[in-house]
Amino acid sequence: MKVSQSFIPTLREVPADAVITSHRLMFRAGMLRKLSNGLFAYLPLGLRSFRKVEQIVREEMNAINSLEIKPTVVVPGELWKESGRWNAYGDALMRIKNRLGSDFVMSPTAEEAFTALVRDELSSYRQLPLSLYQINTKYRDEIRPRYGVMRGREFVMKDAYSFHADDESLDKTYQDMGRAYRRIFKRCGLSVIPVKADSGAMGGSGSEEFMVESEVGDNTLLLCKECDYAANVEKADCKSDYTPYPSVDAAKEAAASISPMEKIDTPNIKTIEELCAFLKTDAKNFIKTLIYRALNVELDLANAPGGAKLEKRKSSASSQEAPQAYPEAFFAVAIRGDLDVNEVKLTAALKASEVELAGEADVLRITNAPVGFAGPAGLEEVPIIVDPSVTAISDGICGALAKDLHYKHVAWARDFNAWMIKDLRTVKAGDLCPHCGSELYEKKGNELGHIFKLGNKYTATMNVNYLDENGKTCVPIMGCYGVGIDRALASVIEEHFDDDGIIWPMSVAPYHAIIVPIKYDGAVKEAADNLAASLERAGVEILLDDRSERPGVKFKDADLIGIPLRIVVGEKNLAGDTPMVELKARKEKEGRLVALSKAAEEIAGIVSAELAKLNN
Amino acid sequence: MKVSQSFIPTLREVPADAVITSHRLMFRAGMLRKLSNGLFAYLPLGLRSFRKVEQIVREEMNAINSLEIKPTVVVPGELWKESGRWNAYGDALMRIKNRLGSDFVMSPTAEEAFTALVRDELSSYRQLPLSLYQINTKYRDEIRPRYGVMRGREFVMKDAYSFHADDESLDKTYQDMGRAYRRIFKRCGLSVIPVKADSGAMGGSGSEEFMVESEVGDNTLLLCKECDYAANVEKADCKSDYTPYPSVDAAKEAAASISPMEKIDTPNIKTIEELCAFLKTDAKNFIKTLIYRALNVELDLANAPGGAKLEKRKSSASSQEAPQAYPEAFFAVAIRGDLDVNEVKLTAALKASEVELAGEADVLRITNAPVGFAGPAGLEEVPIIVDPSVTAISDGICGALAKDLHYKHVAWARDFNAWMIKDLRTVKAGDLCPHCGSELYEKKGNELGHIFKLGNKYTATMNVNYLDENGKTCVPIMGCYGVGIDRALASVIEEHFDDDGIIWPMSVAPYHAIIVPIKYDGAVKEAADNLAASLERAGVEILLDDRSERPGVKFKDADLIGIPLRIVVGEKNLAGDTPMVELKARKEKEGRLVALSKAAEEIAGIVSAELAKLNN
Repeated sequence: MKVSQSFIPTLREVPADAVITSHRLMFRAGMLRKLSNGLFAYLPLGLRSFRKVEQIVREEMNAINSLEIKPTVVVPGELWKESGRWNAYGDALMRIKNRLGSDFVMSPTAEEAFTALVRDELSSYRQLPLSLYQINTKYRDEIRPRYGVMRGREFVMKDAYSFHADDESLDKTYQDMGRAYRRIFKRCGLSVIPVKADSGAMGGSGSEEFMVESEVGDNTLLLCKECDYAANVEKADCKSDYTPYPSVDAAKEAAASISPMEKIDTPNIKTIEELCAFLKTDAKNFIKTLIYRALNVELDLANAPGGAKLEKRKSSASSQEAPQAYPEAFFAVAIRGDLDVNEVKLTAALKASEVELAGEADVLRITNAPVGFAGPAGLEEVPIIVDPSVTAISDGICGALAKDLHYKHVAWARDFNAWMIKDLRTVKAGDLCPHCGSELYEKKGNELGHIFKLGNKYTATMNVNYLDENGKTCVPIMGCYGVGIDRALASVIEEHFDDDGIIWPMSVAPYHAIIVPIKYDGAVKEAADNLAASLERAGVEILLDDRSERPGVKFKDADLIGIPLRIVVGEKNLAGDTPMVELKARKEKEGRLVALSKAAEEIAGIVSAELAKLNN
Repeated sequence: MKVSQSFIPTLREVPADAVITSHRLMFRAGMLRKLSNGLFAYLPLGLRSFRKVEQIVREEMNAINSLEIKPTVVVPGELWKESGRWNAYGDALMRIKNRLGSDFVMSPTAEEAFTALVRDELSSYRQLPLSLYQINTKYRDEIRPRYGVMRGREFVMKDAYSFHADDESLDKTYQDMGRAYRRIFKRCGLSVIPVKADSGAMGGSGSEEFMVESEVGDNTLLLCKECDYAANVEKADCKSDYTPYPSVDAAKEAAASISPMEKIDTPNIKTIEELCAFLKTDAKNFIKTLIYRALNVELDLANAPGGAKLEKRKSSASSQEAPQAYPEAFFAVAIRGDLDVNEVKLTAALKASEVELAGEADVLRITNAPVGFAGPAGLEEVPIIVDPSVTAISDGICGALAKDLHYKHVAWARDFNAWMIKDLRTVKAGDLCPHCGSELYEKKGNELGHIFKLGNKYTATMNVNYLDENGKTCVPIMGCYGVGIDRALASVIEEHFDDDGIIWPMSVAPYHAIIVPIKYDGAVKEAADNLAASLERAGVEILLDDRSERPGVKFKDADLIGIPLRIVVGEKNLAGDTPMVELKARKEKEGRLVALSKAAEEIAGIVSAELAKLNN
């Protein structure tokens, strides 16, 4: 392809709203243009790389026998009502009405569409397992799209959904997907960090996220300095930095030797820091107690404190087997004063759709005091969830359920009981690795891919059935597996660039090599054209800069757009006994001369070798 | 690919709503499933053929140096407001609001998006011509989607847009596109009828439609029995079946010799037929006069009858150069009694956005009579547009602008004048070819592709500029070029099928050949597997029916899904001195035996030959 015949509008200037490297470079290299906030058009150069990422994903999906299909982008709202996500998904779901008034969804993911398709075709266990995927347009009505295609409103994802008769079969596909994902990222030249993840709003159990490090990452990752432990903060665990009592009785026995609980005046003290200073103690001795409001709680609260007053409702009207849920319930959470509650862990522990700190009025009602004086001792209105860190505090301090009053000498098992003991701790840098005990550190990361075991969340709600070998009606279980194509492409740039521009890995470069004639004329033109033709015959994708620009301009553009190999054809080097051209890799500082007669073979060899290194 | 590992849910039964062949067969062959009215999911087999059509289109676009880009499906409403189509497009345009209240469009076509992208990058004549395309999801909010993917709500189109400095350059790209389209359809095995077309709501001048014959076609085509004339009825011309006067004076002179105009009573006569019977004359002597209401008329009516009363308004608020238009204007159209007015021609003649027959109240106001008594003689309220057929009527009959009264002995140029003489005739089967004078006949057709010269419709309205060689600011002109991928695929099936199922052309078949082992076991399995492996190495795409179904079931499915070549591997034929397999083309009745050892080579040869025949 000749540059003059393509459409590569490179820019010297950086768009004002481009704050991250990939966004800046995709614009400057003429790969991308903005149509509106969060809506981007790929120009020819950008689309070539985009399609290569897409094709790598497709090949790896096909290799594990996932089958490509193409549902629509617009999907009937009815399906989302069946699954319950029409209401549960939130405002990022683009809900539309057609001219006849029917509800539709612009798919952000496609569990419902795939589940509905399979529901209509599935009858026998012999059809399972079944793994289907699409590479298709998705839409999220982001309030604040940013970072270019890293978080756009419209984007392309590969999303796969698998259907299984049993856990073993699901696990096999889940493992295959994990391996395929590792291969996809390797082939794209991406260093990913596979981390344990919470499956969040998607539901289900067992999931892994594939993260790339990013200064503007949405996710906080905890990594071990010594072993390969890596987890999203939402799910991260750590080794205890305390010694719990071996039993409730042991705790009671220990408590017997300390003074009885005692009320103390703590006037005008608002924070734990102030309290620690006032009492000359450490936050680790404080039993921090927070009141939470939880929505759609599926735990059974019939015998919990305050539970008798709660009413259940069906969480989904359309399904006979839909779980019963409490629309709203309140809980107290007790945790050691120096630690923070991980609300994702709490949401999972309560089987809730959402948790948030209770408002002032609710806190007043539940604790008889304004915010800041809650404590587990004497609290009877709501169930108390206790982090294990609290069970190791033998002589603690906590709010006394009254303004400006605290208790000291508080002990679990003597002065209060837990309705549930559950790890709810937010792990931080400096905490200890749960595997090897070394120190953990933090990184910011962006999620490129995600694999989940969904269980029967969708198949049960949407009434998917098959007959097993014995003619018994069964509900299949599912997995789902996503990769963002745009985000993967942008991440390649985030990892491969320098001050001059992009440095593409061979596998996703828009072209393998660029020929830069110093002056596209006479013998230089002839040599450049012939070399381009030979290289194209050898399967090398060639860009030929035939513009009548100064060499400096062409070199700058070649560096900016990041083509892996650059071949400069100039009169001087052609003139000797052995006509030569200059070959320079984008990632190297210096070029070298290569005989024109050998150039095609040598360059084709380099391209093959680099592709093989990435692909194998 | 083994059938057991794919997902090809064939059906014996025909879905109730599938009334055309392609819809029926795509469902029965397990290529397609319905998600909702007009929303279809391609299953693996269907998607393979779909991608092949897409790839053929892509290759032919690349071959004429059109550059692929990928804008978003969702496009800012602002751009459609700039072009004026936000209001003009009608209800099939899916208009959506995001959570912030901004307007967006789900693109049915992308003139605005491409024009906006080019506007931002174009500065110099050196960047022209520029031809860009996308193959992307489109949406039309059809009231009554039907015929499967032939008229779905969501579909995929290749749409290209070209930008030029002058007509010559536009014409070159237009011709290139026409040739590319002919190649695309040939490669898909489609017989298309290229027809002259009116460019309708798209605006512009010069367009060609590529039609396939279809019993349920949206379009009526007029074709010549002798020459290659073919036209959409909306644009079709025919040779005159009358001899017009050489001049107005000649008409006046001829009229002088007939009796003066005379009012006659025509009580209770409603139709032209009744009038002809009553007066014992032929409809050809009748001057049919119809009152039309036209919207957004861009013709200058300042000096036309009734024109002084009309007020203009800007048709597009956003553009400084937007044409002035009359929101509403009325016209009389006079045409020979046996002919019908072609409203598409009338719309174009009036430069209107839409025309419709005037309502009863308007007819009464304009003609002083109820509907049925309009005539050109004495009509002064509105401009009269006269079809040339009327100018040849020397002694005619027409309504007398009063109930139950007609005039006889009416002659153009003596008794009334035309404000405009313009061909408005609807051409019918039996009319004469405008090229060779032979008889025309009619066919129903579906549009697969369409190429247009748009002129400066979008570039002027959306303020696209560049500087020419002399530094002068100019507005580029545009062409646009579309092909429906889904519709092309369905049309292939409409053209290639029999009672047993689809008969794919090699180029778009989901697989080139299917191997059917009689019983997938022992030596048969080994031979089938080896043959499949050899064929795949030779680049032949193979489906292997490894299911434990009866041979009859497998044969029926192979015929239904229409794989071009079938290879039956059975114990008996393998058992002889020379092990044989049976090779049968889908399009032929009988198979023949081929030595197993030669089968791969022979089949690969057939596949190459058939592909070459389609591609060259």
